[in-house]
Amino acid sequence: MTKDSSTKDFINSGNERLFLKESHKPLLKFSSVKNFKSKYVKFYTFEAGFKKKHDDLLLVVFMIPTPLSSVYSKTSTPAAPIIWNKKNNKGFCKVLIVNSGNANAHTGEKGIKAIDTYAKIAAKTFNCKLSDVLISSTGVIGEQLDIKKIINKLCFCNDSKNKDLLAAANAIRTTDTFPKTSLKKIKINSKEIRIFGFAKGSGMIFPNMGTMLAYVFVEANISRSNLNKILKLNLDKSFNSISVDGDTSTNDTLILFSLFDKNQEQINQHKKLNLISQGIKEVMHNLSLQVVCDGEGISKLMKVNVINAKTYKQASLIAFSIANSPLVKTAVAGEDANWGRIIMAIGKTNEKINQKKIKLKFGNLLVAENGCIYKKINITKLNFYIKEKIIEINVDLGIGKFNRTVFASDLTHEYIRINADYRS
Amino acid sequence: MTKDSSTKDFINSGNERLFLKESHKPLLKFSSVKNFKSKYVKFYTFEAGFKKKHDDLLLVVFMIPTPLSSVYSKTSTPAAPIIWNKKNNKGFCKVLIVNSGNANAHTGEKGIKAIDTYAKIAAKTFNCKLSDVLISSTGVIGEQLDIKKIINKLCFCNDSKNKDLLAAANAIRTTDTFPKTSLKKIKINSKEIRIFGFAKGSGMIFPNMGTMLAYVFVEANISRSNLNKILKLNLDKSFNSISVDGDTSTNDTLILFSLFDKNQEQINQHKKLNLISQGIKEVMHNLSLQVVCDGEGISKLMKVNVINAKTYKQASLIAFSIANSPLVKTAVAGEDANWGRIIMAIGKTNEKINQKKIKLKFGNLLVAENGCIYKKINITKLNFYIKEKIIEINVDLGIGKFNRTVFASDLTHEYIRINADYRS
Repeated sequence: MTKDSSTKDFINSGNERLFLKESHKPLLKFSSVKNFKSKYVKFYTFEAGFKKKHDDLLLVVFMIPTPLSSVYSKTSTPAAPIIWNKKNNKGFCKVLIVNSGNANAHTGEKGIKAIDTYAKIAAKTFNCKLSDVLISSTGVIGEQLDIKKIINKLCFCNDSKNKDLLAAANAIRTTDTFPKTSLKKIKINSKEIRIFGFAKGSGMIFPNMGTMLAYVFVEANISRSNLNKILKLNLDKSFNSISVDGDTSTNDTLILFSLFDKNQEQINQHKKLNLISQGIKEVMHNLSLQVVCDGEGISKLMKVNVINAKTYKQASLIAFSIANSPLVKTAVAGEDANWGRIIMAIGKTNEKINQKKIKLKFGNLLVAENGCIYKKINITKLNFYIKEKIIEINVDLGIGKFNRTVFASDLTHEYIRINADYRS
Repeated sequence: MTKDSSTKDFINSGNERLFLKESHKPLLKFSSVKNFKSKYVKFYTFEAGFKKKHDDLLLVVFMIPTPLSSVYSKTSTPAAPIIWNKKNNKGFCKVLIVNSGNANAHTGEKGIKAIDTYAKIAAKTFNCKLSDVLISSTGVIGEQLDIKKIINKLCFCNDSKNKDLLAAANAIRTTDTFPKTSLKKIKINSKEIRIFGFAKGSGMIFPNMGTMLAYVFVEANISRSNLNKILKLNLDKSFNSISVDGDTSTNDTLILFSLFDKNQEQINQHKKLNLISQGIKEVMHNLSLQVVCDGEGISKLMKVNVINAKTYKQASLIAFSIANSPLVKTAVAGEDANWGRIIMAIGKTNEKINQKKIKLKFGNLLVAENGCIYKKINITKLNFYIKEKIIEINVDLGIGKFNRTVFASDLTHEYIRINADYRS
């Protein structure tokens, strides 16, 4: 069950453990986007010194102040970058500064003032308004940010040094075991439009917005109001449908940027926007799957489908109740098709359902209906199915027409090792 | 961290693992109530065959139909005994039948009819109304109950065979590593009144009512309406303030019985009732602490105090968010005073708070205030404190006057071993 951890390289930095190298393979194969650049946006990465011998600072520099749509963690204890962005940014970005290794979270007024200082220098350096600067941080909670490490690098963004998408994804990793990139090409009127993105996230993954750092770019001129609509439309079924441990971060951020030349026409046609939205959805879904598949200690991916609920909220509550239940997660990790625990997890939502109407399947294998065990339950097939890497838990509530699918990692010794044993 | 498991005796029974013997000592020392009997109620225990070579059937037989107050799991997928009791019982009990090893949960109409059959035989045997019979079950979810095992024993309750409180507690254990009993003696007008109880529970422990099986008895004549008031008053701070894994069972039940002779006067004086309520509170609190201290895989007990919240609901939400967070639980297990994760857990409730007003302490050691780390934080003392067996997490929200304390277990390899590895 547990993965080989012999070649892992830990750094204990303050109150959170950073995780730099990892030898094991991801649960599912995701191919990295290699040698990808865009003329509209440049990536610069640096070893700023937040982490040991590893890129830990990323500057994303846009050709022009670029329209964007953003969503942030709904946490009641937001980190300084979220507070700062919400206050200062007006929907355009010339430069985005992301550091990993320190979250600048729960750092009080000092944390905000720190951003004020380096964001002002960045605005000067990149010749833009302060409101065109965006900030993200990820890493240790509660430690003040050493902004000299960032300021020192701001003036080194010259063209010879710009990096590709993969380097950007690598620079923002913390406990991630692999960089997360995605690319989708679509065609509109025979013109190719590229949609690409990168993300980080491995622990503290549970929706309520961003749930990690993720940046998506579309090479098309789209209005901010349409960006907002597209982001909202696709958020729920991507980043808001995954869970590792039910814990939500203080720093979660997702931003969608529209990239274009000044002479490029704005796309406003419904049909074209739909095509673009579909492409963005694929990139968001792919990135969010990469995040959950890199869930701390994951040995199996759980795909929980709840169908025919009375409301969408009910379908969501029940799906996440199953996906987050420690008893369901450990059963899946232990390769036990323990359907009783799923009935328990459905019940503990206290939702008004009809117990007799529940149809419960592992994959296509029916295990319970009519309020009790399926008479022809096939234990042999079940025991075989539960050894798969992706386990589908299908719950038909039979009382309405609303559905929800969520993805989650299981709960393994490796999760405990990563999160409890790092001091030993 | 992990306990010695060499002498454990597992039985894989259907889809849930039963756990019969256990060599390790409980986290805290609770002294069992030994050789305790009451003239008002008799306990009969049997090896009925639900488990291997272990008492697994308990009959609690009252001298007269006895007034009671009960609370059941709020689950949307209640087990048959809960459905049956709610429908049939009218607030009095002559005989309570509890089996362990099979929960009679998600067993449909057949599960209900099974109870109908053996409850009717019990009513005949004990010469009472069907509505004076109460049923509890605990164990495997989803398997039909073999009622012959119960019926076979019903007529063997003769006086020579009645057992003590400890035997009753032992007969209802499933994954419990020790029997849970409690006794409190109070005096009213120089007359001794004994309050006693027993409980079971170890996994699937999270409030919303009973959260396990627990039975409390008071040797005094109290009206049903006063029993209801007393139970309601003391429930929140006892059984509804503990959590092992955030998972709620389908069978949770708590019943409070009033024991008395026919010629015993009813107690209705406010002052006396208060004294009795105080005693019942102590027994309920003690039993619920025993349950959480037997939480699957526990290595440390977390006591989470949230004070000065805006509402009681807010204090509760934040306390349980901390108590149930896998990242907080693993940090405690790993002896890491990782206060950033507590800030995260406060935040993920999305409650309206003032981040700057949070004062966070481990025990008496201040770690964060004014929205950031405490300037004089004493890491040496913290590292020493976090090695204790009981870890107090004290959160002062500073925005109101409502408090909540909850108790929880940490999250260890042993929890995973118990719940994921039992097949291997």
